[in-house]
Amino acid sequence: MFPWPDRRIIDLFQVSHPILQAPMAGASGVALALAVSRAGGLGSLPCALLTPEAVLKQAAAYREGTAGPLNLNFFCHPPTLPDEAEQARWRERLTPYYLELGLAPLAPVAAAGRAPFDAAFCAVVEQVRPEVVSFHFGLPAPALLDRVKAAGARVVSSATTVAEAVWLAHRGCDAVIAMGYEAGGHRGSFLTADMSAQPGLMALLPQIVDAVDVPVIAAGGIADGRGIAAAFALGAAGVQIGTAYLPCPESLIPEFHRAALASARDDGTALTNLFTGRPARGIINRLMTEVGPLSPDAPPFPHAAAALGPLKAATSTPEDFTPLWAGQAAALAKPMNAETLTGQLAAEGLACLARLSGRLGPGESPAS
Amino acid sequence: MFPWPDRRIIDLFQVSHPILQAPMAGASGVALALAVSRAGGLGSLPCALLTPEAVLKQAAAYREGTAGPLNLNFFCHPPTLPDEAEQARWRERLTPYYLELGLAPLAPVAAAGRAPFDAAFCAVVEQVRPEVVSFHFGLPAPALLDRVKAAGARVVSSATTVAEAVWLAHRGCDAVIAMGYEAGGHRGSFLTADMSAQPGLMALLPQIVDAVDVPVIAAGGIADGRGIAAAFALGAAGVQIGTAYLPCPESLIPEFHRAALASARDDGTALTNLFTGRPARGIINRLMTEVGPLSPDAPPFPHAAAALGPLKAATSTPEDFTPLWAGQAAALAKPMNAETLTGQLAAEGLACLARLSGRLGPGESPAS
Repeated sequence: MFPWPDRRIIDLFQVSHPILQAPMAGASGVALALAVSRAGGLGSLPCALLTPEAVLKQAAAYREGTAGPLNLNFFCHPPTLPDEAEQARWRERLTPYYLELGLAPLAPVAAAGRAPFDAAFCAVVEQVRPEVVSFHFGLPAPALLDRVKAAGARVVSSATTVAEAVWLAHRGCDAVIAMGYEAGGHRGSFLTADMSAQPGLMALLPQIVDAVDVPVIAAGGIADGRGIAAAFALGAAGVQIGTAYLPCPESLIPEFHRAALASARDDGTALTNLFTGRPARGIINRLMTEVGPLSPDAPPFPHAAAALGPLKAATSTPEDFTPLWAGQAAALAKPMNAETLTGQLAAEGLACLARLSGRLGPGESPAS
Repeated sequence: MFPWPDRRIIDLFQVSHPILQAPMAGASGVALALAVSRAGGLGSLPCALLTPEAVLKQAAAYREGTAGPLNLNFFCHPPTLPDEAEQARWRERLTPYYLELGLAPLAPVAAAGRAPFDAAFCAVVEQVRPEVVSFHFGLPAPALLDRVKAAGARVVSSATTVAEAVWLAHRGCDAVIAMGYEAGGHRGSFLTADMSAQPGLMALLPQIVDAVDVPVIAAGGIADGRGIAAAFALGAAGVQIGTAYLPCPESLIPEFHRAALASARDDGTALTNLFTGRPARGIINRLMTEVGPLSPDAPPFPHAAAALGPLKAATSTPEDFTPLWAGQAAALAKPMNAETLTGQLAAEGLACLARLSGRLGPGESPAS
C-alpha cells in the first residue's frame, strides 16, 4: 500500500488508518466500534443516550475486544428543563397524529433522554482513560475540559463554520472535525442556529484548514474511497464516517431505517428539528413532509423528542414518526460487515489517491 | 507539468486545462472570457441578459481575441408574463422600502429582463457556431436542441440532483455539470423546487458520476487548486469556476459587490429567491435578512426583479437591494487578473494532485 499523504491524525490517535467511526447515539454501540478498531480505524462509543454505568460497561467490553484506541463521545448542550408552554404548543401541533392513532392528546409523556457531559460522565472518563474524547455542540465548561485533558484524552469537537472551528482550536481542541452540510444526524452547530447559511464540505473544509493550526477531520458526504481522497485533497488529515456504517449488521438501527437507507437518494434528506429540537439531517419522512422539516413549534433540544414517543409506540408505520438519520451520500453505502468496510474504505481511498497522479491505471490495485 | 488525470473534458472541448469559466449573466463579458481562454481554459459568454445582436457582437470580439473554443450560455426557463396579483403582493411586501426611499409604491416599473433560449438565439448559435453551448434550468425544446447540435456545438447543462443529471444525459448532453449546494448565483434546478433537499458537492458529484455515462464537470465551492483536485478525486473530468473570477478586474460587478466579496465568510451566503424569483446563492444582505431569504411573496422567475429596480436606483446603499451573488468559497478567491488566475488554478490543481500520492513534497512545485 502507498502511505497516507498526511499522518497527523494517524499519529495523534495512534491508528493505522485516519478513519474515525462517527459516534451515532442510538444507532451504534460496542459491536460497530470494535469492528472499526480491528480494521485499524478509530472506534467510537456515543454516550449521549447512556448512563455513566452503561458507558463504563461498554468501554470495558471495547477494551476487552481490541488493543486499539477508544473514542468516547458526549453532547455539550446546556441542560434545560422542558418548558410547559413550549410543550403545550408542540403537543397541539401533533394533536392530529395523536387522534389518528387513537391516543389522548394530553396523555403524559416520558421526559426526553440525551444528557450533556457533566461531572458524572467526567468521572467515567477519568476511570476509562479513553485515548480520544469527542464532543458535539461545542465543549464542556473549562474545569471539566481540563479534567478530560488531564486524564490523557485527545480532545476533538465538530465545527459547522470557520468561526466554530477557530473557537474550538482556541480552547484547546487537538483536532477539529469540519462537519459539512451533507452530514447525517445532528448538526454540531453551537455558535449559530441559522441553517440557511451552513456551508457544504467542499467550501467549508479548506477554509477551516486555513483558519486553524490543528489537524482537521472531514465529515459529511464521505461514503467511499473517492470522498476520502477528496477530503485529503482539500487539506483534511482524517475523515469521520457515519452513514456508510449504518447498513452494517453491527449497527443498531431498526429494519425500517435499513429499508429507508436501501432506497436513499442524493436529494432525499433534509435538516429537521422535529425529532429532538436541534437541526439534524435525516431521510425525509411523513412527519418532516407534513410539519416541517424545520418548525418553530418544536421545543428546544432535547425536549421535542418526548411528545413523539407515544406516536412511535402506537403506530404500525414507525418510519413516519422516527428520525431516519442519514447523510446526503447514503446511497453510496454498501451493506457489509463494518470491519471489511473499514478496510475497503482505506484501500479505496489510497487507490484513489494513487490514481490521481497517474501512478495507477484505472483497473490497477494499490495492493499489487 | 504532470498530466491531468482525466482527459475527457480536455478532449471534448479542445482546451489545455479542464477549467470552465462559469458564465455569470451581468457579471462577466468578453474580457473575462478572453482572459480565461488565453490561459487555456474555456471562456464563456452568458447571454441571458443580452439581445441576439449583442451576442453576435460579443462572440465576434471573442473570436478576434482568441483561437480557443467558445461557450455560449443560455437560460431555458419557460417564458411567462408577469401576473398582476403576484406583482401586487410583491409590491405590497416591498412597500416599506419604497416609502423609506421616498418612492410612490405603485409607480410603474420596467419589465424584468432575462430571456430564455428561443429561435432568435438559436439563429445566433447557427451563425456563431460556438464549440460549446451550455444551458441553465434544463434544456430547450428538442427541435431547438437538434439545431444547436447540428451547428456543431457540444451541449452541456447543470444538474443539482442525480435525477436532473440522468434527465440531461438521456436527452443528449455531451457532459453534465454537477452543481453543488455551495455554488453561487442561480441554482440550475429544473426538476425540483425543494431547496431544503439540495445536496452538497461532496455527496452529489460521485452519485452523478455513477449515474451517467458522460463526463461530469464539478461546480460549487471550488476556488483553488485543492477544490480542483478534490473534484477529480470524486470522479469529475473538469471543473466550472465562477465566484473565484468575480474579484478579477475583468469582471463587471460594481464596487459594492467587490467590497462584499473582500469580506466574504464561509457562512455569509444563503439561497434567496428575492431578486429574480428563482433560488440563487448570494451574500446575505439587508433585503435577504429582513424579507427572506426565501419568500413565498416573490413572483416566479424572472418577475421578482422588476419591483426591485426603483429601490436599486433610489438608494444610496445599493448593496441592500442588489443581489451579491457568491458561492460558499468566496473567501478563498484572490484578486488578480483572470489569465494569471486561470494558470494558477491549473498549476495548483496539478500540484495538489501530485502531492496526494507523495510524488511532490509540500514545498515543491510541479513545474520544476
